[in-house]
Amino acid sequence: MKIAVIGLGKAGLPIASVIADSGFEVVGVDIDERKCEGINKGENPIPEEMGLDVLIKRHGGKDLIATANYEDAKECEVFIIIVPLFTDENHIPDYRIMESAFRNVGRLLKKGDLVVLETSVSPGTTEERARKWLEEESGLKLGEFYLAHSPERIMTGFSVSRLKEFPKVVGGADRESGEKALEIYKKFVPNVHLVSSARVAEFIKLIEGCYRDVNIGLANELLKIADELGVDFYEAREYANHEYCQIHLPSTGVGGHCIPVYPWFLIKEMEKREKFDHARLLRTSRELNDEMVGYWAEKIVLECMGLNKPLNEVKICVKGITFREGVKELYHSRNLALVKLLMRKGLNVYVYDELFTEDEVGEMGLMWIEPEDADLVFDCFGLKMERGQCQLGR
Amino acid sequence: MKIAVIGLGKAGLPIASVIADSGFEVVGVDIDERKCEGINKGENPIPEEMGLDVLIKRHGGKDLIATANYEDAKECEVFIIIVPLFTDENHIPDYRIMESAFRNVGRLLKKGDLVVLETSVSPGTTEERARKWLEEESGLKLGEFYLAHSPERIMTGFSVSRLKEFPKVVGGADRESGEKALEIYKKFVPNVHLVSSARVAEFIKLIEGCYRDVNIGLANELLKIADELGVDFYEAREYANHEYCQIHLPSTGVGGHCIPVYPWFLIKEMEKREKFDHARLLRTSRELNDEMVGYWAEKIVLECMGLNKPLNEVKICVKGITFREGVKELYHSRNLALVKLLMRKGLNVYVYDELFTEDEVGEMGLMWIEPEDADLVFDCFGLKMERGQCQLGR
Repeated sequence: MKIAVIGLGKAGLPIASVIADSGFEVVGVDIDERKCEGINKGENPIPEEMGLDVLIKRHGGKDLIATANYEDAKECEVFIIIVPLFTDENHIPDYRIMESAFRNVGRLLKKGDLVVLETSVSPGTTEERARKWLEEESGLKLGEFYLAHSPERIMTGFSVSRLKEFPKVVGGADRESGEKALEIYKKFVPNVHLVSSARVAEFIKLIEGCYRDVNIGLANELLKIADELGVDFYEAREYANHEYCQIHLPSTGVGGHCIPVYPWFLIKEMEKREKFDHARLLRTSRELNDEMVGYWAEKIVLECMGLNKPLNEVKICVKGITFREGVKELYHSRNLALVKLLMRKGLNVYVYDELFTEDEVGEMGLMWIEPEDADLVFDCFGLKMERGQCQLGR
Repeated sequence: MKIAVIGLGKAGLPIASVIADSGFEVVGVDIDERKCEGINKGENPIPEEMGLDVLIKRHGGKDLIATANYEDAKECEVFIIIVPLFTDENHIPDYRIMESAFRNVGRLLKKGDLVVLETSVSPGTTEERARKWLEEESGLKLGEFYLAHSPERIMTGFSVSRLKEFPKVVGGADRESGEKALEIYKKFVPNVHLVSSARVAEFIKLIEGCYRDVNIGLANELLKIADELGVDFYEAREYANHEYCQIHLPSTGVGGHCIPVYPWFLIKEMEKREKFDHARLLRTSRELNDEMVGYWAEKIVLECMGLNKPLNEVKICVKGITFREGVKELYHSRNLALVKLLMRKGLNVYVYDELFTEDEVGEMGLMWIEPEDADLVFDCFGLKMERGQCQLGR
């Protein structure tokens, strides 16, 4: 059985590699031809992904053929679609990439084939949009092909081990599709569970993200309160947490493609249905987390005022601009938002990030600085403020 | 060393008993003379508290002397204050009971004595109010006596085992007080930790409550969304939860003396300081949880409309009126609030609760019914709606 994986990004490539490593022939489809060439030479385009190097070296160009051409996947019987879903500034998903992937797969679809969507989506997307796209292009009806949702549950950096250890769910657009998807997934994912529908599987992934977002929001709110009360939040958290209490860590907010996006799927869906009171906590958390940059900017300004320099001459270094520590990704990075907010205030802001070169930073229109040359360093991941060497030396 | 425990309620009596069982002479002070008499005869006034019967039988009237007279505690060197703190309809604490307890203890206070507040309070209460009350009555200054906070962390029904197993924190009004309290508490609580101040200890207890309230709020919000989407919330929750995701159980809201009260301590403190944006998530969760009765009332009405009877003739049985299952306590019970809301809507509402007799229910101005005699039964703890026998028989 040949399996196609559509989308070889940070989520798709690990799963394609794990499937190849389970003994299947995999055709990976990605629009990036250069990336495909590299993979076929055994080169790993996501070096920070632990365990991926060895899998790509072992299977790239052999059991895992990367291609930009859907036609190369025409002999596949299983199509796993794991393409990005971007949202606009109103948090409305832009389905164009996904629709294109489904329509391309639809053109190859044969009776008895299985299509599984792994991208996290608003509940109903698999049963409605995806089914429609496939039926329109293939001329087949659901029942003649199988369609299911199995949300990816990876975490960049740990995707390979996550796939091997983490519980995964599958839900079908109809009962047979769920059972078929379970049967296939069991062959390469050890811990997989069938749920009653694709819609339930979609919902499961979103509420995991909501749990994280709300709990990070709670940590951020409690940090603000602790600061106001003169209490060390971290000390309090250490002793508050136990079996029944898991207060999260505070932050500059929540970035990346996942957690800050998923709650909006549910918020917008409720608004569309005029259930405005059904997503108040989700919305409050989203806003609270997004506004944390304002809180930190104020703290930074207050700290600058303690330095013996005119405010707009203080060299501020924002250390760490990626959305998460150790992952070279800036999507919805609140650290980058903090830099821009400080710039808009007219402050003298520089950045430092060990994942970026001075040139890369310059290309973003930002100024690079070594932390020791700054008057004040704000560590975005440690949430610590330190006076730079040049201040300490005085 | 003799130890006084002021307040022999649901929190105080278990700790007094555990201390007596650790080999200390305990004087328990409570205004309820009849309760004191019973305890001294070995009778347990909180039968639902597991393991308490045997302790009261063993120590009541012997190592644990219950009394309504503070004078009987004058030889004690340690005073543990664990009295209720009620809040008014604006969520402002009424300190009168607590102040009276502290002033009575203050009159007995000798140099070197230790006073520990166990009641959960707004941060700063121990260092400010409690210290002032004690200093005014005793004529001593902090330093001549010790003062600390160690928030009770019990759960009614499991208090004895909680005290033996659960981590407990102590924080002093000054450094020496914290160390002194730790030294004493270690003698009867196995798992106790010193934190840097009474204020931190107060904060720790409150944020545990906030974590619970916000996460119950999240579960309630996700349940509403799931219902709207036609997804089984419980199925989704089962598969969403794992090591990093602990979605709580939904409910009719959050009742009792603890969780619905503590967030307000922080919300009101932030409002007093004009930090209106510092407790938005806490406030949203509080409101969301309190308003869940409206959600359930609507569901009940919708279900009634499916019965072949005029709406105001449908016999609705609300099953379970206590704030928590198995605990005979109605304080801020949302189930009772639900009953009253349905009554205000002009519906024909009855209650059933196995912890109450028909007479007790009647004294509350409510009507009793056996579930099998109702047309519709709403189970407040299982959140299930069932047509009564008389409907099913048709």
